[in-house]
Amino acid sequence: MSGSSFGKNITVTTWGESHGKALGVVIDGIPAGLELNESDIQKYLDRRKPGQSKYTTSRAEGDDVEILSGVFEGKTTGCPISLMVRNKDQHSNDYGNIATTFRPGHADYTFWEKYGLRDYRGGGRSSGRETIGRVAAGAVCSKLLNELGVNLIAYTKSIGPVSINNFELEECLNNKLYMPDKNAAVEAEAYLNTCIKNQDSAGGIIECVIKGLPAGLGDPVFDKLDATLAHAMLSIGAVKGFEMGDGFNVATATGSMNNDNFTIENSKIIKTTNHSGGVLGGISDGSDLVFRVAVKPTPSISQPQATVNEAGENVDIIIHGRHDPVVVPRAVVVVECMAAITVLDALMAHMTDRLSFIKEFYN
Amino acid sequence: MSGSSFGKNITVTTWGESHGKALGVVIDGIPAGLELNESDIQKYLDRRKPGQSKYTTSRAEGDDVEILSGVFEGKTTGCPISLMVRNKDQHSNDYGNIATTFRPGHADYTFWEKYGLRDYRGGGRSSGRETIGRVAAGAVCSKLLNELGVNLIAYTKSIGPVSINNFELEECLNNKLYMPDKNAAVEAEAYLNTCIKNQDSAGGIIECVIKGLPAGLGDPVFDKLDATLAHAMLSIGAVKGFEMGDGFNVATATGSMNNDNFTIENSKIIKTTNHSGGVLGGISDGSDLVFRVAVKPTPSISQPQATVNEAGENVDIIIHGRHDPVVVPRAVVVVECMAAITVLDALMAHMTDRLSFIKEFYN
Amino acid sequence: MSGSSFGKNITVTTWGESHGKALGVVIDGIPAGLELNESDIQKYLDRRKPGQSKYTTSRAEGDDVEILSGVFEGKTTGCPISLMVRNKDQHSNDYGNIATTFRPGHADYTFWEKYGLRDYRGGGRSSGRETIGRVAAGAVCSKLLNELGVNLIAYTKSIGPVSINNFELEECLNNKLYMPDKNAAVEAEAYLNTCIKNQDSAGGIIECVIKGLPAGLGDPVFDKLDATLAHAMLSIGAVKGFEMGDGFNVATATGSMNNDNFTIENSKIIKTTNHSGGVLGGISDGSDLVFRVAVKPTPSISQPQATVNEAGENVDIIIHGRHDPVVVPRAVVVVECMAAITVLDALMAHMTDRLSFIKEFYN
Amino acid sequence: MSGSSFGKNITVTTWGESHGKALGVVIDGIPAGLELNESDIQKYLDRRKPGQSKYTTSRAEGDDVEILSGVFEGKTTGCPISLMVRNKDQHSNDYGNIATTFRPGHADYTFWEKYGLRDYRGGGRSSGRETIGRVAAGAVCSKLLNELGVNLIAYTKSIGPVSINNFELEECLNNKLYMPDKNAAVEAEAYLNTCIKNQDSAGGIIECVIKGLPAGLGDPVFDKLDATLAHAMLSIGAVKGFEMGDGFNVATATGSMNNDNFTIENSKIIKTTNHSGGVLGGISDGSDLVFRVAVKPTPSISQPQATVNEAGENVDIIIHGRHDPVVVPRAVVVVECMAAITVLDALMAHMTDRLSFIKEFYN
Repeated sequence: MSGSSFGKNITVTTWGESHGKALGVVIDGIPAGLELNESDIQKYLDRRKPGQSKYTTSRAEGDDVEILSGVFEGKTTGCPISLMVRNKDQHSNDYGNIATTFRPGHADYTFWEKYGLRDYRGGGRSSGRETIGRVAAGAVCSKLLNELGVNLIAYTKSIGPVSINNFELEECLNNKLYMPDKNAAVEAEAYLNTCIKNQDSAGGIIECVIKGLPAGLGDPVFDKLDATLAHAMLSIGAVKGFEMGDGFNVATATGSMNNDNFTIENSKIIKTTNHSGGVLGGISDGSDLVFRVAVKPTPSISQPQATVNEAGENVDIIIHGRHDPVVVPRAVVVVECMAAITVLDALMAHMTDRLSFIKEFYN
Repeated sequence: MSGSSFGKNITVTTWGESHGKALGVVIDGIPAGLELNESDIQKYLDRRKPGQSKYTTSRAEGDDVEILSGVFEGKTTGCPISLMVRNKDQHSNDYGNIATTFRPGHADYTFWEKYGLRDYRGGGRSSGRETIGRVAAGAVCSKLLNELGVNLIAYTKSIGPVSINNFELEECLNNKLYMPDKNAAVEAEAYLNTCIKNQDSAGGIIECVIKGLPAGLGDPVFDKLDATLAHAMLSIGAVKGFEMGDGFNVATATGSMNNDNFTIENSKIIKTTNHSGGVLGGISDGSDLVFRVAVKPTPSISQPQATVNEAGENVDIIIHGRHDPVVVPRAVVVVECMAAITVLDALMAHMTDRLSFIKEFYN
Repeated sequence: MSGSSFGKNITVTTWGESHGKALGVVIDGIPAGLELNESDIQKYLDRRKPGQSKYTTSRAEGDDVEILSGVFEGKTTGCPISLMVRNKDQHSNDYGNIATTFRPGHADYTFWEKYGLRDYRGGGRSSGRETIGRVAAGAVCSKLLNELGVNLIAYTKSIGPVSINNFELEECLNNKLYMPDKNAAVEAEAYLNTCIKNQDSAGGIIECVIKGLPAGLGDPVFDKLDATLAHAMLSIGAVKGFEMGDGFNVATATGSMNNDNFTIENSKIIKTTNHSGGVLGGISDGSDLVFRVAVKPTPSISQPQATVNEAGENVDIIIHGRHDPVVVPRAVVVVECMAAITVLDALMAHMTDRLSFIKEFYN
Repeated sequence: MSGSSFGKNITVTTWGESHGKALGVVIDGIPAGLELNESDIQKYLDRRKPGQSKYTTSRAEGDDVEILSGVFEGKTTGCPISLMVRNKDQHSNDYGNIATTFRPGHADYTFWEKYGLRDYRGGGRSSGRETIGRVAAGAVCSKLLNELGVNLIAYTKSIGPVSINNFELEECLNNKLYMPDKNAAVEAEAYLNTCIKNQDSAGGIIECVIKGLPAGLGDPVFDKLDATLAHAMLSIGAVKGFEMGDGFNVATATGSMNNDNFTIENSKIIKTTNHSGGVLGGISDGSDLVFRVAVKPTPSISQPQATVNEAGENVDIIIHGRHDPVVVPRAVVVVECMAAITVLDALMAHMTDRLSFIKEFYN
């Protein structure tokens, strides 16, 4: 399976470039019988749409999704679901001056080394617009997960030096930074304004929590649930780190601090703490799944930078065009959607883990 | 492909349990013509072997590897290489008292929820002994990588609160903690002695550096080189976090700090810094690949812990048996070996990236 | 990987239904640098287009292909190529009377059993129109193969009782049945006229020959070149049999008849005969690859047939609408295209078979 | 996934060479809770064991299987099952004279072209002994299928010109040729005696019938149940053709002859005939699955044959050693076992086809 596909039971294949005709995704493996229409998907796409605030690119795209296959009379048929978004506001001219120069922090140089040529318009395939397909697919998976009682929520935990101190879920949807802490959001905006003034950009941390997941998901060896989540997360451009539960803090903890004790509550086995972030040995343990990703500052900054061009000359580059001073807020829904795809895949795999499950199914 | 296999061009399939008859691995896709014998593999296995110091379990295993297939007259044949290590010193009785009780921080409970039964002897499949197959496979991949001028080195960056301050590669092999800083190693030993005295355990951080990797490896979307590395790393038991290059520090950096400028040196394009850790857009950029993983403290500690048993009763557990107070030193070679498998896979995939490569090959 | 994808190095994912909005394919893994435009693909699609003779359905579709991604400035970029054909002449009303009745010989019943619902319009996903994606992908693969000196040709070997006696390649393109024997084509037309008159349909045999393939392609165990070709061929609707070289005739041959001797010709090792059809032990042997598939008669016939409906009642069905009395001629290009995908996949896999190949590439 | 693995939900990976230390298989994906011991597997291996009659090689191998992992207290654990058979009677000297000469009809030449070197001892990896792993894996899958009411039976349909006329299942196990027709078996033995006298060998046809399979298995596009079966069958060395149901006879049939009508019997939908061989549109239709494979005559014959050697010289070869004059009888169990693996894989995939199935499972 080539590298534009992800998932085993649910296989998601994205295609498209920033300034090509369209972008899209084929989702194979979604079971028959899920009610689905364009608006189920559009509301997720709208969360990553450009032009929503001064902290996101002003590119004017409606990003209207079209369902091309796999849905009949309002329900999924079990056949591949093809989703497409046409590109409209492409402004290719904006990118002319970087056609032969490698932008620092971007994939220009590595595409050129890999393929010997590259679609230099707006990053081509390495553009953030590639995530349209991921979000569309994740919307479908999330809808199915919700029907099974599984709910995902991702949000901005920090931008630059500004971290959340409170957690108010509703507030998260009230500010353009998707921060669940009103005061932190105000502070973060101030920080971003400084970045813009300095012709610079900011990074941050996104956290995702998944509630309602049964115990038993994930494979105990290479496809541990946290391993496939890490794969999913690092496959998002700009993500440079992943941690599960207590994450990097475990390095300085001791076993007695880090172990989660089990206890019985309402005749159910639960953990009294959740340092593990919801997995033990790579398998979900019935607690909330909790993980974080580190997002790097947007590499496109408008201050002059030293670099080289395809002719092998040292040159300075000034990047014009429309760029987000921070990609964290728009990446929030991408994180949530990639998690939805990963978790749904694991949910389906678990159905064949025991002979007794199979016997019950076929009797 | 089920979850005990990893890799596309190089497919590694491990099998075996802590207290079963044997453990092993099948490596498929290794090209024909690589000189290979047992000692090439044994020297890697010896780095993870138990009983080497008071900081590792005293289980007495030679972990002698046997090559069962895929090598003829001292060279690989292109056919699958089957490697096996027999278990010897199994002491199953040590584990009798935990057969029906779920150890905190372990996969006992999740295996039981997943499969409805479990091999409770020494963790069964979730034991650290499962990594024998990974290390054996990684040894083969590393040998091949070395012939291509690619070299990997992993080492302990910190144990508990003790981090390295210097980097002396040779020192790394002089101490049992694989720390490339003599003083830090002494300090870390003191910390571990305290942990042992407290019936507790320690975590830490492992860093891995890969030198000599050409630019152009990795797929730009789901199989980014850092994404497959993250998958590989989180698939190692006890690993709770992964970061590439500057990792989580990018969250507080700005674009101007985090971007690596390009320049020409000796007619070659290089980066003047390596914040990215050797990848741009998921594709290797010709710099050193640098990443770190966070390893949690050993969950098996000898102080009493509150937990539940299979009968659903709250009980206290005291874990006897032989356990490492820290798994970091023995995990170092596992990290290095999983990285070798991942990188070799990407090296082979790159050979078909351009039509010109294919034309040259077939002409 | 779910079942709408095919291939490992080249991964082809088709989507779309007979009466949906569109049909298409995503091809991932095509190397960068192949010149490609819509007309390269259109000429293959035109070979399977409906309405070309009275022996094919009169549905009026232009089947115009649109390249949506993966091509920049006339060349492939190495990124996934998304191709789409919009459905136009859908006549959904024609199919209203079979919405709840299971047509004999069709997949109506099995889809219903599998998914609990089905897109009954024109066969939905099981329609022959699904092959549009395969042909479009095969056109791309064929173009690349041609540049490597590999050429594929498929043709009608027999229709009903009428087999070819001569082989004139050019004639194959002069008649609508794609038979490389003028007289046989005339005879076959007469047979088809009788079938039409009898409200019945015909089957036949398609043969495919692949020239210029180097020795060494295919994996010796599960992914033998003939095994992946068999998979590809039986995945085409209506195909009920596959044979390689002498095929079923080997059952009555002896070893001395069936073995192909080797000899030296112009300092090259060749076989003096080709009973094997170009593979030995699943690996290409440098001879022409030769295989055949058996195609069943079109199940949609206009005479009344006994069947059942979704309500579980015995009913008679009369199928209206536009149907080919024989699918063989239109399936010829599908066979050729699936073979192209399969063979290209194997060509790319072979590049990593030897350490010496890899060393040469990276030095 | 490299070419020594087969299957998606059930992944079978074989390893080993004819004259290596051992041969084996890793089976991943078998659900937990299946009772399994060595004798379940041994009885399948005994059906393919050499030395059972004068029509099979006299190599003296017990082919005793050892379960190395994945079974605990007599039950499968859900973890990979590793099975191994040690080679004993290797007689490597027998093969010395063919170390540098390419045997006609064998994979010697193609391995050499593919890998640049080869294990010439007894065919190495292309030996029939590779099927030990397949049979061991198929035995496990068959046991599970039997518990679900699915039963497979393969038998010899013809050897050379001698076909069965009757079908007596029990007789099939009474003769060494696995022919379900006593008289045909006697005739076939006479034919084989002639072949031996002529220093020649025979081919034949194997048929397989699978009973008790529910409707709804198989994917409608590339992973049609017949497509994956065809893949499985052509992956067996010596198999040159595959046909489903009426197979190649459909080419001369008409639609009215070939369509299977549906009817209601005991409130169940059944087909009144089974020309389709149990699949419609690639999905099982609830009828018996019926398919056949063509097996070529053993290429190792003792009469002199013209060939070339590695030095590129024309030479004559006389093959000594122990060879079956016909491989059909020993291939019967291999066909049955590969079918079991394929069908079990499809059974597990079907469990996630409908949202209603998934909801029921998780509620």
